[in-house]
Amino acid sequence: MDNHALMQQLGRAARAAAATLAVTSNEQKNQALQAIAQAIRAAKTDILAANNSDIAQATAEGKAAAFRDRLLLTAERVDAMAEGLDAIAELPDPVGRMLEEWDRPNGLHIRRVAVPLGVVAVIYEARPNVTADAAGLCLKSGNAVILRGGSDSFHSAQAIMACIESGLLKASLPVTAVQMVPSSDRALVGELLRMDQYIDVIVPRGGLSLVKRISEESRIPLFKHLQGVCHTYIHEKADVNMAKKIVLNAKMRRTGVCGATETVLIDRACIDSHLPAIIDVLAQVHCEIRGEAELVAKDDRIQLATEDDWSTEYLDAIVAIKIVNGVDDAIAHIAKYGTQHTDAIITNDAKAAEQFLQRVDSAIVMHNASTQFADGGEFGMGAEIGIATGKLHARGPVGVQQLTTFKYQVLGNGQIRAS
Amino acid sequence: MDNHALMQQLGRAARAAAATLAVTSNEQKNQALQAIAQAIRAAKTDILAANNSDIAQATAEGKAAAFRDRLLLTAERVDAMAEGLDAIAELPDPVGRMLEEWDRPNGLHIRRVAVPLGVVAVIYEARPNVTADAAGLCLKSGNAVILRGGSDSFHSAQAIMACIESGLLKASLPVTAVQMVPSSDRALVGELLRMDQYIDVIVPRGGLSLVKRISEESRIPLFKHLQGVCHTYIHEKADVNMAKKIVLNAKMRRTGVCGATETVLIDRACIDSHLPAIIDVLAQVHCEIRGEAELVAKDDRIQLATEDDWSTEYLDAIVAIKIVNGVDDAIAHIAKYGTQHTDAIITNDAKAAEQFLQRVDSAIVMHNASTQFADGGEFGMGAEIGIATGKLHARGPVGVQQLTTFKYQVLGNGQIRAS
Repeated sequence: MDNHALMQQLGRAARAAAATLAVTSNEQKNQALQAIAQAIRAAKTDILAANNSDIAQATAEGKAAAFRDRLLLTAERVDAMAEGLDAIAELPDPVGRMLEEWDRPNGLHIRRVAVPLGVVAVIYEARPNVTADAAGLCLKSGNAVILRGGSDSFHSAQAIMACIESGLLKASLPVTAVQMVPSSDRALVGELLRMDQYIDVIVPRGGLSLVKRISEESRIPLFKHLQGVCHTYIHEKADVNMAKKIVLNAKMRRTGVCGATETVLIDRACIDSHLPAIIDVLAQVHCEIRGEAELVAKDDRIQLATEDDWSTEYLDAIVAIKIVNGVDDAIAHIAKYGTQHTDAIITNDAKAAEQFLQRVDSAIVMHNASTQFADGGEFGMGAEIGIATGKLHARGPVGVQQLTTFKYQVLGNGQIRAS
Repeated sequence: MDNHALMQQLGRAARAAAATLAVTSNEQKNQALQAIAQAIRAAKTDILAANNSDIAQATAEGKAAAFRDRLLLTAERVDAMAEGLDAIAELPDPVGRMLEEWDRPNGLHIRRVAVPLGVVAVIYEARPNVTADAAGLCLKSGNAVILRGGSDSFHSAQAIMACIESGLLKASLPVTAVQMVPSSDRALVGELLRMDQYIDVIVPRGGLSLVKRISEESRIPLFKHLQGVCHTYIHEKADVNMAKKIVLNAKMRRTGVCGATETVLIDRACIDSHLPAIIDVLAQVHCEIRGEAELVAKDDRIQLATEDDWSTEYLDAIVAIKIVNGVDDAIAHIAKYGTQHTDAIITNDAKAAEQFLQRVDSAIVMHNASTQFADGGEFGMGAEIGIATGKLHARGPVGVQQLTTFKYQVLGNGQIRAS
């Protein structure tokens, strides 16, 4: 079978499975999720052995340590995958929720009811847990899913897919509810991105270059974020200790996540009162600090920043510090250099906070909290398939509810429309 | 200025206006809407004169009567435009609605708040009222709008734009809140469709060829429907009189609207009991009736249908009738030939109705009502900028609420995320 025919077959099978999943009960979906979790626990040895092969190959190919860590499965990580599926099973059913209902003067009753999107495709790189997470979230939300993992995690993904298949069978659900693109041939991704008759939305999970390439090529809408150049803005009325504690966490808790703060904005009015304490805690944990000439002159732990720094997502122990002249200036800086992901203000001034929360046009805006909370789990959504910075449909963490759409059900008793 | 520079300037101005509109009060938006309505009433003579020029040109160019009717403004139609704007002013503010809010165990308070999309572009054909409607809906929902009308309605649109400008000025809002692409050069549309840094969503309003062309070319998400091949399914437990009355209305009330029924599905079990009455009422108003050989043999008012008929949007006094074997078969026919717009079942059997409403994957599904109710006004939304058959964000009638998105506001008091 050629690539085109192969992918079309996958698409048709997904669409057919989606029709079944859309009317599958919450109980049956949960049964499948729990059976997959059990199968994963039972197959732990096999999964770790498969992962060993992937790791060996990555090592042989000289892949970087950070890459190998993303690829690595341990007994704990396998357990966490299974627990994740059990947690998804415990979420309320996102399908069938009555979002709104109302009556019309002519007696029509209109209901807006949550329904699955249909078919979701997830394109990801090394992390093997995405296989289980994405399958679990799509299953719970009644969507069929087509997975396309990276070639580096091929063996791990195959071992996890075997568990998913066994769980689906146990719950009498179509095994085509979760399918994996069967080869790492890049041409298959090209096919996938044009299958708009079969796929409703694509979630690209991975680095900037992957997401960029998919954005340019896809005919299908994406839930995606390209980058997270997140800001923490220290307003002149910020509590110094809170500012220090939050900046340290927002920047350094984990530097590789998209919700990590990359730029600290500081009000000119509080440079002397607030900045030294912040520089101290960052320097202590060996965070590289970049700033304008004015700041460099004040503290020799600060290196000179260039224009590029304001729009760089370091994903590393590096921070850029920019002086701003009040809330409006901070908002303007974020509008110019931000990525509409997550931005925070630290202040005890309610009016400044309100202005910031209203005017910053990002998926998530925060007051007196760490930008590292930008996460579906931390929001209480149970789990997320990704974070979206677009404005349509899903914005911020994409959980099971965001994987649904709605339909209008109009109930009448013979109404016709007047001419 | 070249086309590219011209359109970029338009885009930048729209983005700047959007930032203002996003934080404009409901009162000020309503003041603008009412001022525009007043200006339209006051300029009625000018608007009609401008429309006269457009009509004269269309006549000279030998445009069809239906086209000229869409283009035509009368005193009543001008009044209706003004009334539409007043009605939009009376809608509750869609911006700032608290969609959800909850607390997290760590004390974070999360709010999901409705915010404008940003910049909307509307590309339409002859109907001059779209200029006022689209401007009004976007203004109310806090969005800047870029309008691109057809060259045929150029003078009418200019006259209406003058009223919009005067209304915006009176309410002290930026006149760039509503902009019109200043020339009918098609290359400008090409520029528009690539301006994804300035435009959040495009609404194409017009015939199939316009929407298709835009779908193929656009880099920006669309709220659109390509076609409305809507079905009315006569279940064997349908009340004959209700079925007759609804089919007549669904097909013939206005044949040119996207919610008009194009195909009637009839259960084999009730051909003899139900179909004759339906054929009678349709034939009486000179609706052309097409059906399978089996039906042609029964009634000589029925012409033989071809396979193409099942997927044709006639937008005319023509109906196709197809025999189905029960609910599942009807659902399968709609899945194969439908356009996910609006589909109805006529039955007194609650179980059959529930099955149909659940399983038909369309934006609007109806029980015992005319598909011609597929309309924002009829849904109680006040007005619509179009109907969407996609699954993301807006589905069905697109009113002011559907022209908003949301942001998360996270309120803390110093929370940091655990490692």
